[in-house]
Amino acid sequence: MPTILGQNQYGKAENRVVKIVRDGDTHHIKDLNVSVALSGDMEEVHYSGSNANVLPTDTTKNTVYAFAKEHGIESAEQFGIHLARHFVTSQEPIHRARIRIEEYAWERIAAPDADSGPVGAEETKHSFVRKGQETRVSQITFDGGKWEIISGLKDLTVLNSTNSEFWGYVKDEYTTLREAYDRILATDVSARWRYNWTDDTAPMPDWENSYEQARTHLLHAFAQTYSLSLQQTLYQMGSRIIESRGEIDEIRFSLPNNHHFLVDLEPFGVKNETPDGAVYFAADRPYGLIEATVLRDGVEPRIPLDMTNL
Amino acid sequence: MPTILGQNQYGKAENRVVKIVRDGDTHHIKDLNVSVALSGDMEEVHYSGSNANVLPTDTTKNTVYAFAKEHGIESAEQFGIHLARHFVTSQEPIHRARIRIEEYAWERIAAPDADSGPVGAEETKHSFVRKGQETRVSQITFDGGKWEIISGLKDLTVLNSTNSEFWGYVKDEYTTLREAYDRILATDVSARWRYNWTDDTAPMPDWENSYEQARTHLLHAFAQTYSLSLQQTLYQMGSRIIESRGEIDEIRFSLPNNHHFLVDLEPFGVKNETPDGAVYFAADRPYGLIEATVLRDGVEPRIPLDMTNL
Amino acid sequence: MPTILGQNQYGKAENRVVKIVRDGDTHHIKDLNVSVALSGDMEEVHYSGSNANVLPTDTTKNTVYAFAKEHGIESAEQFGIHLARHFVTSQEPIHRARIRIEEYAWERIAAPDADSGPVGAEETKHSFVRKGQETRVSQITFDGGKWEIISGLKDLTVLNSTNSEFWGYVKDEYTTLREAYDRILATDVSARWRYNWTDDTAPMPDWENSYEQARTHLLHAFAQTYSLSLQQTLYQMGSRIIESRGEIDEIRFSLPNNHHFLVDLEPFGVKNETPDGAVYFAADRPYGLIEATVLRDGVEPRIPLDMTNL
Amino acid sequence: MPTILGQNQYGKAENRVVKIVRDGDTHHIKDLNVSVALSGDMEEVHYSGSNANVLPTDTTKNTVYAFAKEHGIESAEQFGIHLARHFVTSQEPIHRARIRIEEYAWERIAAPDADSGPVGAEETKHSFVRKGQETRVSQITFDGGKWEIISGLKDLTVLNSTNSEFWGYVKDEYTTLREAYDRILATDVSARWRYNWTDDTAPMPDWENSYEQARTHLLHAFAQTYSLSLQQTLYQMGSRIIESRGEIDEIRFSLPNNHHFLVDLEPFGVKNETPDGAVYFAADRPYGLIEATVLRDGVEPRIPLDMTNL
Repeated sequence: MPTILGQNQYGKAENRVVKIVRDGDTHHIKDLNVSVALSGDMEEVHYSGSNANVLPTDTTKNTVYAFAKEHGIESAEQFGIHLARHFVTSQEPIHRARIRIEEYAWERIAAPDADSGPVGAEETKHSFVRKGQETRVSQITFDGGKWEIISGLKDLTVLNSTNSEFWGYVKDEYTTLREAYDRILATDVSARWRYNWTDDTAPMPDWENSYEQARTHLLHAFAQTYSLSLQQTLYQMGSRIIESRGEIDEIRFSLPNNHHFLVDLEPFGVKNETPDGAVYFAADRPYGLIEATVLRDGVEPRIPLDMTNL
Repeated sequence: MPTILGQNQYGKAENRVVKIVRDGDTHHIKDLNVSVALSGDMEEVHYSGSNANVLPTDTTKNTVYAFAKEHGIESAEQFGIHLARHFVTSQEPIHRARIRIEEYAWERIAAPDADSGPVGAEETKHSFVRKGQETRVSQITFDGGKWEIISGLKDLTVLNSTNSEFWGYVKDEYTTLREAYDRILATDVSARWRYNWTDDTAPMPDWENSYEQARTHLLHAFAQTYSLSLQQTLYQMGSRIIESRGEIDEIRFSLPNNHHFLVDLEPFGVKNETPDGAVYFAADRPYGLIEATVLRDGVEPRIPLDMTNL
Repeated sequence: MPTILGQNQYGKAENRVVKIVRDGDTHHIKDLNVSVALSGDMEEVHYSGSNANVLPTDTTKNTVYAFAKEHGIESAEQFGIHLARHFVTSQEPIHRARIRIEEYAWERIAAPDADSGPVGAEETKHSFVRKGQETRVSQITFDGGKWEIISGLKDLTVLNSTNSEFWGYVKDEYTTLREAYDRILATDVSARWRYNWTDDTAPMPDWENSYEQARTHLLHAFAQTYSLSLQQTLYQMGSRIIESRGEIDEIRFSLPNNHHFLVDLEPFGVKNETPDGAVYFAADRPYGLIEATVLRDGVEPRIPLDMTNL
Repeated sequence: MPTILGQNQYGKAENRVVKIVRDGDTHHIKDLNVSVALSGDMEEVHYSGSNANVLPTDTTKNTVYAFAKEHGIESAEQFGIHLARHFVTSQEPIHRARIRIEEYAWERIAAPDADSGPVGAEETKHSFVRKGQETRVSQITFDGGKWEIISGLKDLTVLNSTNSEFWGYVKDEYTTLREAYDRILATDVSARWRYNWTDDTAPMPDWENSYEQARTHLLHAFAQTYSLSLQQTLYQMGSRIIESRGEIDEIRFSLPNNHHFLVDLEPFGVKNETPDGAVYFAADRPYGLIEATVLRDGVEPRIPLDMTNL
């Protein structure tokens, strides 16, 4: 046979699961988008079309919904761990399961003041509004022995209106860019961090708290870095997280440089200066794109390079 | 001539304007997407290609940026009023200007605690993160005499996890839906409200405050309505705004019914009941779509019916 | 009551219907996205939540699928006519039905040569590939007496690499644009044309042929117009259709001017001239936006102005 | 230092380049979206913000446009080779360049018949319409010694209306799917194939012809495979290309299973059978997702597993 099968996986993608748990009048919501990918002894289905080893993708969908009820959704990571373990341990031909999850955040609608309506001055208990722009993501992989948990976020749009410069760069025959000593720095953060928890017998991190802490460190490092390049800001965000969170060993970023160009208003006799209000053109394309991995010293990188672009 | 020209307009669409105003170390940001549409004596450019009456769309773009500097951006509405007045009063062939603006909200990145970093325990002053999912919108129209200001929002995603029923509807030969006595009600609110300010000599509303108040009333009405149909919730949101805000006479909504179907887990021997956690499938398409106008009694409707779908 | 209900409608949107008809081994495909909007005596569902007059949106979905089987899909327009008539005539509280349809085109996968595979040198009979980028659209409205049929297309991207100029325009203090005597003209055509068929007793147009002919006339007028402005090209496309197709009385366009800017390569000692190959930057935003209606002389315009932006 | 820098790259992404070459009255168009990613001695810009080794992303953009003029665009692959070689050989700190290109296809607007207009019965020479839905993609990587060229396509939507079955699969406690003996098989093909050309001294493939041939083989294999699973169809498409094209050694696919569910019309007394027209619901999410690599026997896989999802 002149061709052979290489790496392969299959499953049901983008199962949209919403779970509401009621604690008296106070409800709690989890809103996930769950994708299942299984691999193992799957040569025959590719070569001859025999499905004898194939658990249908429809079944993987059913399992996602059933597990959301039976095991609950403590966190995206914990939910993915339940699912991955089930597929690998219950089906002999399946050797590896990878669960990808997106989580959408909600916050409670703030209640009106006591005198403005019948609900009264407490937080509304079962009314929600979607929160923020970013999406929390997680990928849980299990091969029957070790776990790999990579979590993170995407589409977290941030902007510093000062404390950013760009100069001292290489100039070649195609360089026309002017150096900048006070510019806007803006990006949509896509980050994936890898946990060093790999073994069932070790205590698990507190996934919910770890996410919140990592996100906060990332935002603080972005705000506090006086930046000479977006690469420097990237590294500060990454090292801040790794230094602060012992459970995280590696983090990869993909950061578009959302260019804001100072508009030339000289033709209209107007000086476009910063003190009393500068006007910028927010450009779409092209954009700079900065990608890098930050590692705890001594560990091996394992996050795929393009994972932050998915 | 067997054909003639009907209504027409032209201009530059989607000018992305960001303005940063510095108040000492504390910066303020306005982030707009501004579209200009002009109409007037424009027969010749359509019939013969003569541009003698045509102010280039490139010029309308330049004007947007120059005005952002010269007049500032107090609010989207006020900025649109400056622009519309300029085009109609400075160019004789232009009889009407319509400015459409989208505004993107930002909030400050919260500072770390005093002991966690060099910035200290106050709000960061020039670091921002994009806020919420909804987009504020406004349309400002001027014909040289009267103003029409229509503002609103889109993509405000809300969900009530209870206090929603649906029953007692018409059943025909194609009806299979079961009645529901406790369901999720979720939608992406798109709303446009029209101000009764039309005359330059009358005092203007406080546009920023009016938007915030209208948005809050809308959210409270959504949360507080025990809903027998999405139409009822729509009407409650609209009438709450009109009754509470004297400057608003009309509001139109387009509300997709974001269906959340209770998953049937009976085949797996699992009861999917609400008390201890119900699991829903969040569907994409098809979706119910509820559209209606709510009016102050006695006023004429003027908001175009499809405007909430733009 | 200080507020009242204005215009309203409801229904199920975006029902994705695919129908396969088999003519021996040769299959035919219709691929539609159908949205239903009903209006009539619907005050009570808004005021009190009573659904006594409400045919569920779920039922309108079922009807779409059942009618696709029972009545077939001869054309999008004919299918919409069946649906609209049904809703208005079968439910007393419903006074008007509006059906919006998007149609996606497919073409057959061309068969390999006789000597290259087992299928042989004829067209494949049940294998299809999605065709083109544009989407055919139609809106069918029935009020129990008269019909209004508005059809058209969107996202038809076209480009002339010459035969386009732009000069002789108004210059004001904000004008910096240079005149152009040989430029690229490119746009994504969104067009809606209205048929003058309104009465059940009159013979219907051949909807399929009319669409194909209108699309062809539009493309030819675009290609053949030596253009001094995009407005001129728009008018030529519209008048060509109306003059050639007696069944069409009105057409509205929304045409973004997809700017292609000649790149300044002078700083690198390179002349960016057209004869031996000119290089352009294809810009995203902002873009010019040209909108207009072309009418058969003497008819009243009825196409909503923003309909081409939906 | 407790953290270190891992793999990193940077450059300008999504440079939209259009080139028009005039051959008398007949024009030719190339329409590309070019992204540049450079890596090398970049530790300092991450650690300290020193840009001493950084060629600005703005310069990489300028280079793309200048090279489009100076070197022409024979093919996406050839253009990327010019660019990658330039960056690696002209800048000492740059050790690797990776160019990603998307290409958008255009076809000429067909001319009207001789008797229908002034242009006459030949193909229009400088008027174009965007062709098809798929995007051609290419990634060119150069490390100063060897080349890696990975090309392919995405968003090629295909459908077989018969000759597809799915049965004989594993049933577990969560399986409810019914076996299917005649179903629609539809997918959006994303494929990336790797060329075995790696060495400057070897003759290059004819990139344009190779793409066209690979695309045609893929379509034919899709149409001609009587499919017992989407995995089988995938493998047939991959092996057909590798067996037919000696210059290609490896191909990876990502194939969503675009589910078309036969609608249950029994509640309305209608049999939804295939002979005289079956009606399907085209679903959005969730969808099956089938991914696999097909290899020439004996070669090592090198295409990143997630590359087909970008």
